[in-house]
This record gives sequence, C-alpha cells and structure tokens, in this order.
Amino acid sequence: MTPTITAFASSPDRGRGLARDMPVRWALEEVGRAYDVRLVSFAEMKQPAHCALHPFGQIPTYEEDGLVLFESGAIVLHLAERHAGLLPGEPKARARAIGWMFAALNTLEPPILNREVAVLVERDKPWYAERLPFLEDRIRDRLRDLSARLGEADWLEGDFSAGDLQMVTVLRRLASSGLLDEVPNLRAYVARGEARPAFQRAFAAQRAVFTAAGNVAQA
Amino acid sequence: MTPTITAFASSPDRGRGLARDMPVRWALEEVGRAYDVRLVSFAEMKQPAHCALHPFGQIPTYEEDGLVLFESGAIVLHLAERHAGLLPGEPKARARAIGWMFAALNTLEPPILNREVAVLVERDKPWYAERLPFLEDRIRDRLRDLSARLGEADWLEGDFSAGDLQMVTVLRRLASSGLLDEVPNLRAYVARGEARPAFQRAFAAQRAVFTAAGNVAQA
Repeated sequence: MTPTITAFASSPDRGRGLARDMPVRWALEEVGRAYDVRLVSFAEMKQPAHCALHPFGQIPTYEEDGLVLFESGAIVLHLAERHAGLLPGEPKARARAIGWMFAALNTLEPPILNREVAVLVERDKPWYAERLPFLEDRIRDRLRDLSARLGEADWLEGDFSAGDLQMVTVLRRLASSGLLDEVPNLRAYVARGEARPAFQRAFAAQRAVFTAAGNVAQA
Repeated sequence: MTPTITAFASSPDRGRGLARDMPVRWALEEVGRAYDVRLVSFAEMKQPAHCALHPFGQIPTYEEDGLVLFESGAIVLHLAERHAGLLPGEPKARARAIGWMFAALNTLEPPILNREVAVLVERDKPWYAERLPFLEDRIRDRLRDLSARLGEADWLEGDFSAGDLQMVTVLRRLASSGLLDEVPNLRAYVARGEARPAFQRAFAAQRAVFTAAGNVAQA
C-alpha cells in the first residue's frame, strides 16, 4: 500500500526544503518507497479533520494501512525500522544511529530553531541586538562538539543512517545564518547529505509544490 | 551485565528529579533492571574522558557491555525495545507510542525549556516582562492540543508506555510555573505518572544523591 504524507500547500520556506515533510520525503526516497502527498493549507491544518491525524495541527503526517503517525522523527524511524538502508544491522551500531536522531532533534535543533524564531519575530525588538549573539553562541557550542565527534568521518555512525538524515536536515536550517561556514567539516557533511540522489529527488519533489503554486523559490 | 549511567554529582535542580538521568532511572525501574550510577561534576563533564562517552559533555550516558549511548530519549527507547513493559506489542500501537516520545522531546519540551532558560538567564533583563507572556502562550498552545488529545484517557496510547514516561518527564518541568494547573487533565496525567512505583523509586534514588551531598532539597 502506498503511504500518504501531508505537506504545506504553500510552504513558508519558499521551496528551500526546510519544512518537516523534507526528512520524511528523503527517508522514503532512501528506502525506495513511492508515496502520495496531500497538501494542506494553514487553515486546514487547524481544522478537526487534520487535527485528528496530528494533534498539534502541523505537518507532516504519515498514513499507511490504518496507521497514522506524526512527528517527522517518529516517521523516519518507523521507515528506518521497516526497510533496509537507514539503520545498521549490528544492534549496538543501530542503537547509536538512533541516538544521533535524538541528538539532532533534541540537542541541535532547539537552539537552531530559537535563532530562527528570533530572526522572524524579534528582529524589530530593542533587545534583538543583545539576544542574537547569545543565541548564536549556543549554536556554536553544539556545532563545535558535533564537529569534534564527526572529525574526518563521512557519517556519524559508519555508513549513512537515519541519524545522518536527521542531523543534515537540522543543520540545513543554518544555511542562511553563516554559522555553518565556521565549521568546515560540518559544512562538507551537509553537502554530502545534499548530494545523495535520494535527497535530490526529495528536494525536487517539495520544490515542485512551491513552483506549481505559481511562486519563484529563493534558494 | 549491570548497566552504568551517569548523573550530576550536584544537580542544579536541587533533587527535584528534573535532570535527564530521571527518565532513564524511571525506565530502568519500570523494566526491573538494576543499574549503577557514576556521578560526575560539571568540570568532569567537559573533560575528554566524559566527552568520549557524550560528545556534548552532558549527562546522562548509558554504558552496557561495550555499548555507550547518550540522549535520554535514545536510552529510554533502547530499554523499551529490549524489555517488556514500555511499548505495546502490536506494531501500529508501538509506532504511535514511539511517536509520543518524539512529540514530548521535540514538540513539548523546546517551548518549556525556553521558558526555563528565560526565567534563569533573562529575569533581570528589561525585555523579560514582554517576552515571558509570549513564551508562556507558546506552551499553552501545546498543552491545549495535548489535553484535547488525551481527553479522559489515563495514558496517551493504551497502557502506560515509554511515550507517557517521556511526556510526564517533560511536563514535570512546568511544576513551578503554574501553567499545568490551567489544564486539569494534564495535571492529573502527570500525577498518575508520579504515582507509579517505578517513578517513586527513581525519584528517591536521584534525591538521595542530592541529600547525600549535604544539601536540603526544595521540592
């Protein structure tokens, strides 16, 4: 049965692949599964029909054969558990790869999102100039530690895994910040992820939604 | 083999069970596994020996038979996958329970932690009075949606699961904020979690570390 995911009808990221359908699309492409997409507007996301699928009224959701999932991390893990290619077979390496998924979503993403929210919401506030360096230093701390752990390796745990998929997804949010340029091995790590054919297919698919909506994406 | 976890030698939460060793202790108690604890100071956490276990220089870590894990969510999931009692057996229910773990850590915890950080770091800043209501309203949005989904149920997905363990852990951080008091079914949900014998044993164990250090916990 072909699974169905939901995505923004009009993504606020303007087709840059930063919305949370992107890691799910990427995972589906990595494991070679076709999928259907149902686009939802911001208004529809908050209606009862969508909230029955996603209690927080967001995207993405994942529907397959009576199973409904939300939370992109949970969906990626679900796919990684059921298909080859996104988790090591050896149990300890598998546990570590899953650990990197949690690290991406719970240790790296929160400070990165906080900076994003500040740039969006507080840019005109009198405290913005004082808060922004504080927020960026918290991100730098995380990037420094992650960079030290990655070292010269291609991926965080042996071969490419769901942990890398999730980590690259999170780090891509820094593209416009310049912070990733301070950490060459992480910049190269993100580029390696983006160069994967599955990423390219997923990126093109989400971008097509944006261009089909009559907009011009700003990369 | 008995696993070893790390915890704060002197927890900044003053024994209230809000540090991230708490969900790991709780999960170990739920599945009936004995464990050893190695206490680390703030200085030790940033030394190479500990950073070899935890790249971000934090607690907890989990060591067992050559496996080293960090990220409390990953450790709880690892335990839940290997022992009965923390995940449903039916595959779809299992996937949904894991989904609640991600929801706790990636959707609920970030706004809750942002409020905590603001209270700690920005209390004396001129913008604090304007930012705090904004931060609290973001938490209220999440609590409202979670409350609607939980409804009159005892737990989020059938029987108590790792998803509840993680969600209750995150919601407990709101105890001193008053925000949980606005949502009676979630307040009762947290109380149900705290009433579990495994929670009680885990709480007592982490509190004993604090009182042994010669301090008096402020509940």
